[in-house]
Amino acid sequence: MSAREKIAVWGFRWVPPFAQGLVRDLRVRWALEEAGRSYESRVIGVEERNTDAYRHKHPFGMVPVLESGGETVIESGAIVHSIAESCEALMPPSRRAETLAWMFVALNTIEPPVNALSLMDLQHQEEEWVKLRRPGAVDDVNVRLAALSEWLDDRDYLLGPFTAADILMTTVLRLIRHTDLVARFAGLDNYVKRCEARPAFQKALRDQLADYARNAPVAA
Amino acid sequence: MSAREKIAVWGFRWVPPFAQGLVRDLRVRWALEEAGRSYESRVIGVEERNTDAYRHKHPFGMVPVLESGGETVIESGAIVHSIAESCEALMPPSRRAETLAWMFVALNTIEPPVNALSLMDLQHQEEEWVKLRRPGAVDDVNVRLAALSEWLDDRDYLLGPFTAADILMTTVLRLIRHTDLVARFAGLDNYVKRCEARPAFQKALRDQLADYARNAPVAA
Repeated sequence: MSAREKIAVWGFRWVPPFAQGLVRDLRVRWALEEAGRSYESRVIGVEERNTDAYRHKHPFGMVPVLESGGETVIESGAIVHSIAESCEALMPPSRRAETLAWMFVALNTIEPPVNALSLMDLQHQEEEWVKLRRPGAVDDVNVRLAALSEWLDDRDYLLGPFTAADILMTTVLRLIRHTDLVARFAGLDNYVKRCEARPAFQKALRDQLADYARNAPVAA
Repeated sequence: MSAREKIAVWGFRWVPPFAQGLVRDLRVRWALEEAGRSYESRVIGVEERNTDAYRHKHPFGMVPVLESGGETVIESGAIVHSIAESCEALMPPSRRAETLAWMFVALNTIEPPVNALSLMDLQHQEEEWVKLRRPGAVDDVNVRLAALSEWLDDRDYLLGPFTAADILMTTVLRLIRHTDLVARFAGLDNYVKRCEARPAFQKALRDQLADYARNAPVAA
């Protein structure tokens, strides 16, 4: 991502309260705030995801998309990485490989079981299979959280100092904020709170929620 | 990863036939073959994953791990990226951001639903919830495969030329090789076959299977 181009970040126009603060453009907004980069948010309706116009931006009809100086980047992991590449605080030059490794830990090792549980509880909660499967899904999450908690030990952040990997990890763990699974690991719970207390996170969240408030459907 | 250090790649000593050719060190072996780098494989028993000694290498007790000149890299996505960084054929210098984006597509957009279905069929197949959930899981996979197939269109590989992203995507799609879901999309099916026909893939697979053959448990 070039240094002073205007940046636009695509998210949803509005989502129901259970999903507010979980949509993945939050990751990108947060990274941009940490990097001190200003941006404009652009929104689409959830129902517009699969229009030809939007699929031209994102082949899978997902958010976020980042646009900057004629370039389009998809995938929250790749977008956050592209922001971090021009921000030493998000990816220390001597620890680039390690930062990327922990970004993949967040999105490929932790997110799949965490997101599976989140979908069960927030989107499939009335379905019979969820009753049967949920205990096993909770076990899968706990195995990962225990190892993550052990890794954190007395580190403030995943690599010691705060990096782009913490942005992804925190937003992944927020997907099960409706449970007490993270809170059962005191160190992990403190870690998430430490990350969420950062002014850049607070600003990013406030701005995401403000977009939803502005675009909220009128009550029937 | 430095240019001429000795490389070791960790995988499992042996896995049952249904998992042979699916374990994720195959991604790393393949990338190393494409890059023309030699390596040694190191193996652990599946039951040794959570020993202190191995958890010291990998905090989540997973494979693969790459060791090179005193450095340890975890996460197949990050390891393949580190190999690609010193191999222009795997990540063209002018298209680094795009290559990484498609690596994340493979591991964060396609793998979660594909791996969920794979686990249902290969590890939980006797469980009641799978009977109820499987049709929905197949739908989730089909939505992604349809979009991926549309993206590929007349491209030979994800970005046009072969890159590191194709290594990840192919090994992700192999996770449902026991189904006909990929085969229903002719273009996608040809894409996987085109990737699997590469000599580097063939060599990597042969070497992974040879390790299992060498270490196969003696029949009781």
